[in-house]
Amino acid sequence: MTKAHFGLVGLGVMGENLVLNAERNGFSSVVYNRTYQKTEDFLLGRGVNKSIQGAKDLQEFVSKLERPRRVLMMVKAGAATDAVINQISPFLEEGDLLIDGGNAQFMDTERRVKELESKSFGYIGMGVSGGAKGALEGPSMMPGGTKTSYDAIESLLNKMAAQVEDGPCVTYIGPGGSGHFVKTVHNGIEYGIEQILAEAYDLMKRVCGMSGDEMASVMGYWNKTEELSSYLVEITEACLRVKDPDDSSDLVEKIMDKAGQKGTGLWTVVSALELGASVPTIYASLNGRVMSSMKDQRNYAETILNGNKPSFVDFGKPSDGMPLLMDAVVLATIASYAQGMDILRLASEEYDYDLDMPSIAQIWKGGCIIRSTLLSRIQDAFKKDPSLTNLIIDKWFTDQVNNRLSGLTQVVSAAANAGIPVPCLSSTLDYLNSFRTSRLPQNLVQAMRDCFGSHTYERVDKAGSFHTEWID
Amino acid sequence: MTKAHFGLVGLGVMGENLVLNAERNGFSSVVYNRTYQKTEDFLLGRGVNKSIQGAKDLQEFVSKLERPRRVLMMVKAGAATDAVINQISPFLEEGDLLIDGGNAQFMDTERRVKELESKSFGYIGMGVSGGAKGALEGPSMMPGGTKTSYDAIESLLNKMAAQVEDGPCVTYIGPGGSGHFVKTVHNGIEYGIEQILAEAYDLMKRVCGMSGDEMASVMGYWNKTEELSSYLVEITEACLRVKDPDDSSDLVEKIMDKAGQKGTGLWTVVSALELGASVPTIYASLNGRVMSSMKDQRNYAETILNGNKPSFVDFGKPSDGMPLLMDAVVLATIASYAQGMDILRLASEEYDYDLDMPSIAQIWKGGCIIRSTLLSRIQDAFKKDPSLTNLIIDKWFTDQVNNRLSGLTQVVSAAANAGIPVPCLSSTLDYLNSFRTSRLPQNLVQAMRDCFGSHTYERVDKAGSFHTEWID
Repeated sequence: MTKAHFGLVGLGVMGENLVLNAERNGFSSVVYNRTYQKTEDFLLGRGVNKSIQGAKDLQEFVSKLERPRRVLMMVKAGAATDAVINQISPFLEEGDLLIDGGNAQFMDTERRVKELESKSFGYIGMGVSGGAKGALEGPSMMPGGTKTSYDAIESLLNKMAAQVEDGPCVTYIGPGGSGHFVKTVHNGIEYGIEQILAEAYDLMKRVCGMSGDEMASVMGYWNKTEELSSYLVEITEACLRVKDPDDSSDLVEKIMDKAGQKGTGLWTVVSALELGASVPTIYASLNGRVMSSMKDQRNYAETILNGNKPSFVDFGKPSDGMPLLMDAVVLATIASYAQGMDILRLASEEYDYDLDMPSIAQIWKGGCIIRSTLLSRIQDAFKKDPSLTNLIIDKWFTDQVNNRLSGLTQVVSAAANAGIPVPCLSSTLDYLNSFRTSRLPQNLVQAMRDCFGSHTYERVDKAGSFHTEWID
Repeated sequence: MTKAHFGLVGLGVMGENLVLNAERNGFSSVVYNRTYQKTEDFLLGRGVNKSIQGAKDLQEFVSKLERPRRVLMMVKAGAATDAVINQISPFLEEGDLLIDGGNAQFMDTERRVKELESKSFGYIGMGVSGGAKGALEGPSMMPGGTKTSYDAIESLLNKMAAQVEDGPCVTYIGPGGSGHFVKTVHNGIEYGIEQILAEAYDLMKRVCGMSGDEMASVMGYWNKTEELSSYLVEITEACLRVKDPDDSSDLVEKIMDKAGQKGTGLWTVVSALELGASVPTIYASLNGRVMSSMKDQRNYAETILNGNKPSFVDFGKPSDGMPLLMDAVVLATIASYAQGMDILRLASEEYDYDLDMPSIAQIWKGGCIIRSTLLSRIQDAFKKDPSLTNLIIDKWFTDQVNNRLSGLTQVVSAAANAGIPVPCLSSTLDYLNSFRTSRLPQNLVQAMRDCFGSHTYERVDKAGSFHTEWID
């Protein structure tokens, strides 16, 4: 039998689909799973009559690969990944390459790149976005590590990736853990956009009393605009239209309102904090999930806490996409991207990743969960000015803010008066209002800190460090 | 010469003041500083004619201490603390005790407790709050570590601490790094309150056009109310009254509006994220500082971004403490405490700290930066119900929310319309509105996640895990 082009460890749905994707594009493979039954089922099922072989153990697995060997791991992040690395390493030889396609914490990838390269193996940490469908039809991939390692898989990845008008949705991201870092931030932006759409849905439902189909039509309108056309808006429309077969009511209303958070969304915010990046919209989306999980506490609190109740507010005609609400959703979406790109900019400096910002926008245009037409504008903005400090100061985005800030303001104010929480929308308003204010009130904080801790302060009118005895 | 009761390493202003405090309370000491000149200056200056000796090196320092030795380290957190531990350890004997009074990261303290105890030394990680003045006159102290180690310094700490009506502001916090953890959260709450007062100041200045003295009078009013009487409101009044000797204008207006963040405020939010605690008000205060630091970006953005300009809003008479604004400040302050206590509750479970919540409220009532009359209510709430899941569901606090939510709503709405960022106030409103809503919109997020990633979902009407094909 001829040796396979690459090997896959871990036959979850993502792993299976990536192998089938590669095979469709002409790349043969050998697959291994901890429980062999799963491998057999796959080979007799979705993998039948394809140039895909199985292996019962890692030694056999490795022996069936052409050299230098390319091994894609699709296993759980953390200890499971380290376990696979330790088990397979004894069978590998100089120049062989391991690729981690899971959602690793980027600092784990940094460590693994160093460890594996010290043993003369290659190591690529690769973020993969697109869900099961993307994995099969063409995902967006974010591979990071040593460039020569990337070169050994470039042709494979270029074929497997989603294709957009200016190329495949994969590129060499940078050294070390940069690929997983960029994927983490992708997910942080995704958290933001999901929560923004949930807040818009909450307002349409509770302030405007709209049905699932009516809300879906607004999403459909938005999905035809340049500003909001995106995969997430598209699937939100679809989700809002689905009926419960039990009683033909909107299925979404039967779903428990609890969403988890502990992975990449959390790491995005922790990284932002460490880098000094301002990401209030993304934090708000993460915290929206935290509050959603406190279901028992909320059930009780509703019985004892009063407050405003929703009454009708006119956000504009649904057939026109409810222009005020659209203003709010557009600006919060822009803020999510702007904050995510800001993390990347600061990380690129801090960790010497030398990220190419236009390329990152480019590979997110297809295949991944946050794909959207807005990403072409983001790509353009960073092409025009690769060292752009904030997306919002690019002309196209500045115009969006200037045209839509009034709408966002009205929506946040109306939500406050209706007693409906809109953490992403209101955080975005505060973010934009802070950003456009040259004089903020932290001078008072500095006065307090100098008062109780002699921390000293700077002045606006002369250089130096000053201390005042504020209390006689 | 008789041996000293305890020793101090690190003659910064905090260290000096703690030694003088101890001496005033009848405890002799020996002091050591890396540069001996500083020791000599202190002994001839503030330390003259007191039962305070100096030491030129750590061997001499240790030899002058009675056994078991008690050594308080007041040095920089991180590498400097480890350096002192390594340098002094060879001179210590079984049963001797090191106390770290700096702002260590609690996980560093966990590690050090284990390392030092494995060498038969004792180790206490102790948060100290109150600034320079508190250190001298009586700080609030949060010592954590092994209980028997604490017993060896209890009498010293009880005398040194601030005294309130029900005892000294120090207690045994719990094992490991719990003392530094509690201090970290104290500082997170402090960040919140400082930013809340800064937002109130910004509104009074820009929406109401008030002078420093007029704003100070409102602070003075607030400081006489049960809800807001506190050290931070007191010093804010003082700061707002101080004039610049150069031109007799309000000095606070000459201070640069940039406040730093990288220490305990950041750790508080990172811990909250890891514990799954909802802390939007505290995050907003931290991020307010981040945005303040982006001064150049803000200066430029102001020239290209439009938006609403402040016009007068009536928050109520200044001579009545501007009741609407007071509503907002009271609820945001309560939210800061509630979120901080929530972190402590979750950390107590997660790290087996077995924290005594009423005692923590008690020792914060005096000496520390966040001391306030509200802490008596917090103490009462946790006395009544030690396993209280959120401060807000205690009757007294519930009443505050019910009475003041309308005021907070009006202030947030007015700030939005005036284009003034109020991240802590609006985050508090969203926090309260989320908390009192039994049905939040994260069901839609779960539908999306099931749609693109087959993540499955729970239903509200039947048990189990469900998956739907949302798109044909």
